[in-house]
Amino acid sequence: MKHDVGKALLAADLAGTFLFGIEGAAAAIRGNLDLLGMMVLAFSTALAGGVVRDLLIGAVPPESIKNWRYVATAFTAAVLTFFFYRMVQAFPATLLMVLDAGGLALFAVAGTEKALEYGIHPFMAALLGTITGVGGGTIRDIFLAHVPRVLQSDIYATAALAGAVVLIVTRRIGAPPTAAACAGGGCCFALRVVATAWHWNLPKIAG
Amino acid sequence: MKHDVGKALLAADLAGTFLFGIEGAAAAIRGNLDLLGMMVLAFSTALAGGVVRDLLIGAVPPESIKNWRYVATAFTAAVLTFFFYRMVQAFPATLLMVLDAGGLALFAVAGTEKALEYGIHPFMAALLGTITGVGGGTIRDIFLAHVPRVLQSDIYATAALAGAVVLIVTRRIGAPPTAAACAGGGCCFALRVVATAWHWNLPKIAG
Amino acid sequence: MKHDVGKALLAADLAGTFLFGIEGAAAAIRGNLDLLGMMVLAFSTALAGGVVRDLLIGAVPPESIKNWRYVATAFTAAVLTFFFYRMVQAFPATLLMVLDAGGLALFAVAGTEKALEYGIHPFMAALLGTITGVGGGTIRDIFLAHVPRVLQSDIYATAALAGAVVLIVTRRIGAPPTAAACAGGGCCFALRVVATAWHWNLPKIAG
Repeated sequence: MKHDVGKALLAADLAGTFLFGIEGAAAAIRGNLDLLGMMVLAFSTALAGGVVRDLLIGAVPPESIKNWRYVATAFTAAVLTFFFYRMVQAFPATLLMVLDAGGLALFAVAGTEKALEYGIHPFMAALLGTITGVGGGTIRDIFLAHVPRVLQSDIYATAALAGAVVLIVTRRIGAPPTAAACAGGGCCFALRVVATAWHWNLPKIAG
Repeated sequence: MKHDVGKALLAADLAGTFLFGIEGAAAAIRGNLDLLGMMVLAFSTALAGGVVRDLLIGAVPPESIKNWRYVATAFTAAVLTFFFYRMVQAFPATLLMVLDAGGLALFAVAGTEKALEYGIHPFMAALLGTITGVGGGTIRDIFLAHVPRVLQSDIYATAALAGAVVLIVTRRIGAPPTAAACAGGGCCFALRVVATAWHWNLPKIAG
Repeated sequence: MKHDVGKALLAADLAGTFLFGIEGAAAAIRGNLDLLGMMVLAFSTALAGGVVRDLLIGAVPPESIKNWRYVATAFTAAVLTFFFYRMVQAFPATLLMVLDAGGLALFAVAGTEKALEYGIHPFMAALLGTITGVGGGTIRDIFLAHVPRVLQSDIYATAALAGAVVLIVTRRIGAPPTAAACAGGGCCFALRVVATAWHWNLPKIAG
């Protein structure tokens, strides 16, 4: 059964990689990049957050360098986006947002747990989980010479951080790891979806 | 007594982190970022130089990932800047420049020494000290989609490099480590302050 | 004799570093950076791709941090470009392109081989070879707040990737390492030169 759980987690991880890969490739098209640029942005969006986390916690080579399935998945997403861009564009925006929130929750939870496994302090593990969730999109925006969207408004990184904190706290008060992961992931997902639906933003100071 | 020196160094390091954190958070406000963007830029400005140095010398996880006090200090700086931005703006520019020069000297010296401790060649240790001093501001500018200011003009990275070189040379000629650190830090600080006061710039070629 | 081969390889590597250093320094001048900016861009263009590869495969400290000759070569290239920019500008564009293609081939092949040595999966090793070849120019463009040129059009990263794949495949079918390196490097070089001469581009979708 443990084996099946491992397989299910890998499948979920690859599904998240595929989804984020499509988003990265679509951003590359909007940025007027070529096919190779689409592959690089699919890779960055889907995997760079985890690569940064792994470098920072000392898990080297990073998981997505050791296991070729991740890059193959991101590249497949890029190539499919290249050939079926019309279908990607026609995809309902709300459904995409909900799926993206699911991917964010998954990455934030998995990132926090991996940092804890490597003996990182819980406060920093929550940060590393957030980086896992939003680092890829941040690096994608830097490649496109934009200010990263997550720094500007939107409850996105905040949702990832909130989910990571909930995971940490529920573990601390003695909940079993699976329950803590579900609570953290659910909190991240719900906060992202509700904040988008109700147009919540973080406060900002007029510069 | 050794213990007290260690404590004093940590206090100085955290004071530098706090100051650079305020500068990063203020840059985030000028760049129209939200509260989370302020926290990320406070973190980057104050700590990313040291993180890059630690990754390059193989000190993993980096100090500011292992010790949560650094990130907590940077985040506190961001939150205080959020609530008291008017006070931050009213802060005398000259005093800020002098304090900033002090932080730069501290980071450049500490970075050079840590690289030497890890057995890095002195020539490269001076570079790594410079990266420790200016890397954070460089990454902050990249997040803001600007060309990093330190690459454009100003005696800033040059002051850090000069201080690091002085530290290396005074050690080589047999000065005790503390004297070498003071000489290097003093040189960096003085060069930065004098260069700003007299509007010195590095030479440039019309492109 | 083995010793001589090692020496020849180091010489080739340093020659590539010097050439890419000049290109980086010239880009810094066009970007209106000062002398220090020229040194940083010479360093980045010539060496950052290899630094990223070494961080990702766990070869820490990276080769160009351990061995001061690389940075010294890049800095020399920057200083010479500063003093002799007119000569750099007068350099025939076609010859520069051919030399650059040689440097790209060298870096892509060396990067792929190093990744293989560190036990990285061949598919990922080909990617890491590509990163070695084009990562420096990518980071240079990010410093200049441009979208990296290799993502936009041109057969450049594609040539590096093709060379890396040829190296991997010829090794797999049993060719001796030297023959595989020559086949891979030759393929990268030829593809780059022919693609430039005939204005080949990768396909792109109107965004």
